[in-house]
Amino acid sequence: MRIDVIASVAEARSDDFIGKTVMVIDVLRATSNMVTGLAHGCRGIVPVETVQQTKSLQEPGDLLGGERFGKKLAGFNLGNSPFEYMTEDVRGKRILMTTTNGTRAMQKAHKAQTLLACSLLNAAACAACALELKRDVVLLCSGTQDSFSLEDGLCAGLVIEEMSGMRGGDLDVCDFGLAMQACCRGLGNGMTDALLNCANGKRLSKLGFLDDVLYCAEVNKLNTVPALRDGLLVPWPHTKK
Amino acid sequence: MRIDVIASVAEARSDDFIGKTVMVIDVLRATSNMVTGLAHGCRGIVPVETVQQTKSLQEPGDLLGGERFGKKLAGFNLGNSPFEYMTEDVRGKRILMTTTNGTRAMQKAHKAQTLLACSLLNAAACAACALELKRDVVLLCSGTQDSFSLEDGLCAGLVIEEMSGMRGGDLDVCDFGLAMQACCRGLGNGMTDALLNCANGKRLSKLGFLDDVLYCAEVNKLNTVPALRDGLLVPWPHTKK
Repeated sequence: MRIDVIASVAEARSDDFIGKTVMVIDVLRATSNMVTGLAHGCRGIVPVETVQQTKSLQEPGDLLGGERFGKKLAGFNLGNSPFEYMTEDVRGKRILMTTTNGTRAMQKAHKAQTLLACSLLNAAACAACALELKRDVVLLCSGTQDSFSLEDGLCAGLVIEEMSGMRGGDLDVCDFGLAMQACCRGLGNGMTDALLNCANGKRLSKLGFLDDVLYCAEVNKLNTVPALRDGLLVPWPHTKK
Repeated sequence: MRIDVIASVAEARSDDFIGKTVMVIDVLRATSNMVTGLAHGCRGIVPVETVQQTKSLQEPGDLLGGERFGKKLAGFNLGNSPFEYMTEDVRGKRILMTTTNGTRAMQKAHKAQTLLACSLLNAAACAACALELKRDVVLLCSGTQDSFSLEDGLCAGLVIEEMSGMRGGDLDVCDFGLAMQACCRGLGNGMTDALLNCANGKRLSKLGFLDDVLYCAEVNKLNTVPALRDGLLVPWPHTKK
């Protein structure tokens, strides 16, 4: 099984995803929020590219969530903090979500055979899901404004490490993936420190979102795998309990 | 001091290098050959972009070296194996060198304040040189055909690790650099294994160049720092002995 890692959305070409299992990764914070919302009972999440589209798609009962420049949007119910996606308010609801990098990456990967939302929180569950699907895998790191973000690369490395452990090593991993895997191994238990020291972690901590960073750094806390079905992210049916 | 790492030539913009100390990295094998040649007494190395230019620049006594598609060029004295750059033949000679990725990266970085040729062989010496120069640093990984190559990323990580050790930690490193540093740390003593398992290492081993890969994987074996002066790579005068 081939595993490719793409360092940022800027480097992604739509055709790279055809027939593949694609994991979109935006650890701080879009995909962490998606898995958190679904793990806490929201009905489904629609990743949307623009603010305008998000508003126009809203139906009665839907919640709007997301950010631009890290800030909550006017008229939206939810911002971009994972703690907003674990309250009773989200239970049973459909959430329309738009973010600067994560939902853009999802749009870019629309030709995937199966599209999953992956974060450190559900990396092992995503790894298990990809192995079940038995197709080549692309890990798309969303990055930030077209640049590589460490937290997304570390998550890609963690997924590869988990897949290697489960499968026993017969994976054909691209050089960038091997680098991220070695990087992740090198950290040992230092994931939280790494997230606090990367550019986005520092920026969010300064803006008052330290708790968000600490939460998003938790490894394999959740077993939910958001998978796209008819435009809606819902829990992967075979998610390991 | 700011340190940025660029993952491949495709991602480099000439203006990113203005006023900076730039280390061009092409571990397999261009920059390993350059440092090897200078460490073994060649007078200087001219990195040249095309085969045609290389031939037209030749003066009596000059040697021509390099490759296309990994193979020695017709009419050239030297190919792309480091063992060709450590013989008595190179002593006192000027070498005109053209390779697919490494010399192209050097051309791309021509706006650098100081341009160094860096490999695993001379990573610590390059790190010391950059600290002496006291300017912001860009580590340009040549990569292969516009893609990231693990061996170049590991070398960038090693340089950052060496600089951190020498300076004591007050470096401002980009996320990709932090990833490569963690990656390098994660390897411990596994540099040779990493080089044998990356795409270029496997390819070269299959082509019969296993010894080249093993040699290029040797960490901090040489103290020579090739620095560009008037188009000629010569040993950095302050190279630590």
